[in-house]
Amino acid sequence: MKEKNNCDQTIWIKENDHKVIQVIDQRFLPHQLIIADLRTVDDAAAAIREMWVRGAPLIGVTAAFGIYLACLEAVGKKNPKQHIADCADQLFNTRPTAVNLRWALEQMSAVLKNIEDDHQRCETALREASRILIEDVEVCRRIGDWGKSLIRNSENAQKGKTVNILTHCNAGWLACVKWGTATSPIYQAFKEGTDIHVWVDETRPRNQGGRLTAWELANAGIPHTIITDNAGGHLMQKGMVDLCIVGTDRTTYTGDVANKIGTYLKALAAKDNNIPFYVALPSSTIDWTIRDGIKDIPVEEREQNEILYVKGWYDDALREVRITPEQSKAANYGFDITPARLVTGLITEFGICEPSEAAITSLIKKR
Amino acid sequence: MKEKNNCDQTIWIKENDHKVIQVIDQRFLPHQLIIADLRTVDDAAAAIREMWVRGAPLIGVTAAFGIYLACLEAVGKKNPKQHIADCADQLFNTRPTAVNLRWALEQMSAVLKNIEDDHQRCETALREASRILIEDVEVCRRIGDWGKSLIRNSENAQKGKTVNILTHCNAGWLACVKWGTATSPIYQAFKEGTDIHVWVDETRPRNQGGRLTAWELANAGIPHTIITDNAGGHLMQKGMVDLCIVGTDRTTYTGDVANKIGTYLKALAAKDNNIPFYVALPSSTIDWTIRDGIKDIPVEEREQNEILYVKGWYDDALREVRITPEQSKAANYGFDITPARLVTGLITEFGICEPSEAAITSLIKKR
Repeated sequence: MKEKNNCDQTIWIKENDHKVIQVIDQRFLPHQLIIADLRTVDDAAAAIREMWVRGAPLIGVTAAFGIYLACLEAVGKKNPKQHIADCADQLFNTRPTAVNLRWALEQMSAVLKNIEDDHQRCETALREASRILIEDVEVCRRIGDWGKSLIRNSENAQKGKTVNILTHCNAGWLACVKWGTATSPIYQAFKEGTDIHVWVDETRPRNQGGRLTAWELANAGIPHTIITDNAGGHLMQKGMVDLCIVGTDRTTYTGDVANKIGTYLKALAAKDNNIPFYVALPSSTIDWTIRDGIKDIPVEEREQNEILYVKGWYDDALREVRITPEQSKAANYGFDITPARLVTGLITEFGICEPSEAAITSLIKKR
Repeated sequence: MKEKNNCDQTIWIKENDHKVIQVIDQRFLPHQLIIADLRTVDDAAAAIREMWVRGAPLIGVTAAFGIYLACLEAVGKKNPKQHIADCADQLFNTRPTAVNLRWALEQMSAVLKNIEDDHQRCETALREASRILIEDVEVCRRIGDWGKSLIRNSENAQKGKTVNILTHCNAGWLACVKWGTATSPIYQAFKEGTDIHVWVDETRPRNQGGRLTAWELANAGIPHTIITDNAGGHLMQKGMVDLCIVGTDRTTYTGDVANKIGTYLKALAAKDNNIPFYVALPSSTIDWTIRDGIKDIPVEEREQNEILYVKGWYDDALREVRITPEQSKAANYGFDITPARLVTGLITEFGICEPSEAAITSLIKKR
């Protein structure tokens, strides 16, 4: 492992050594920027399972490169296809509920199915994994391309004043390959000279906002301020927020948005104060099978220790301090559902649309 | 200092030694229950300034006993009244914006004004400080008396099912002398046999919910679950909250409620899901000078380090871990305003009323 000072990408092929994949080991952010080498399938599986990498798109890309590493390992083996199939199982079992993980493994499996030659198999796997990576970069770039107009056209930007944007959790490039989803409009508008300030919800319990989004923005030189998850309503009441942009884990074709717990509360406050509330997403995040998000999207319950303890940097290492009584327990719901009626619009790689069945279908499905 | 295993009161006169006041040193809760002896005015001033005690009512009571300790110190001095006046200044300057602190010092000053005899002065000071203490206990008890009916009459209680109550921050006995405000109805309904479960918002950044309210409830044997401040909306959407009860720092005579940051977000979610949202308060918390809470109640901004760092228990001591990037800053707003339109009712020592000028005036002012 080595440290790198500046970057804007989560995963790449190592320069001068195409048999090694490099990723940011995100467990140590924002305190240390550690680059990890993935040389084996075991490395790739550990990276996903132990959350060196996180975020649906990034997990998919990492798994795709994991299959490439499996192909390298299989060279010269008696039954290379069996080895690769076993590796695919191993990778799938790291985070079995991750939709993009399954999808990426299926993509890889499809292109490798009929290849018998070791060398050709490695070539094809590298090409397909790279294609998946590049496609993710491109989708995120296009989300930003559409979304930046919302920022540039906002009243404050038109007057040459600072545009205040509130975001929740991390829907940044650390969850993808590059650009991110909710952050992509921010990065692109900022690069083109719009004066931006971002309110970053810390996003308890895992603090992805305060740790990861804040680190991304600091790295990019974008003015930002970390706030508690409690503060957004007050800022909106006081006219200190012009626009909210968040990401999503899953959005129904009717426009109900599942995202990190607490998103719904911010959407309520935005509505109450007439502030636009946008959700940025690749069209692959639309769930075409669910009509009623509140009723039918299951909400994951996570480990209570994420609430009972807080992890942070102390005495040159990550430590966990207890912040609650020994006798108390906690409940840890992973996300909530923001009903479509509270969402101003969806920013996708194909354009911006209202969160309604008609608009989503016509923008995305009929394409 | 010594440890005590069980208690439900924050401040008292030491048994068998009326020259010592004892308080819970709340800085170490919920990890250690430490009882501190206050023997001098310096002790009382330190207890307020360094937040061994917190919460408006408790600060006032502590200051009143501080004046009693000043009277003890003044015995035999050449100019006892000057000493007591200096002590009053010292106590006032510990937390100069605390309204109850000023009020308690004025009460003490009024009863001591014309007393020349040392012994009589000490007697009177002890009696007046005790009266202020008992009055706070009584006001909180009466708030609970009125409020418990809301819990006992709720649909689930009527059916013999568990009543789920959500609260934010700590408006418990740790902020008062005994009972608390928002917790008083909970304690009293529980004591009378109502099956209760409390959702405790952890209440970042200072975690008064996760630390203090949870500790109070654990101590009283009341079933409770700590949640992040992000989770309340989801619980309400899913029908897992029957009632919200919170405290307040200041409520306008028109019913706008200033309370710990994040209260407004929970009130929005309660409204969106048709869940009653009550505010418990002593009538002394009503501000008769302010009509529009959002416009005219100033919101205190606190130290950003409360957000950048988290304090918790590690390796047998309180430690502070950094949870954010070195380059990022934070904004720390202390409370927000919940407009009257989102509040179902105010629970006071005189009864329950709607949050309107007419109802508040007729219940409290015309008394």
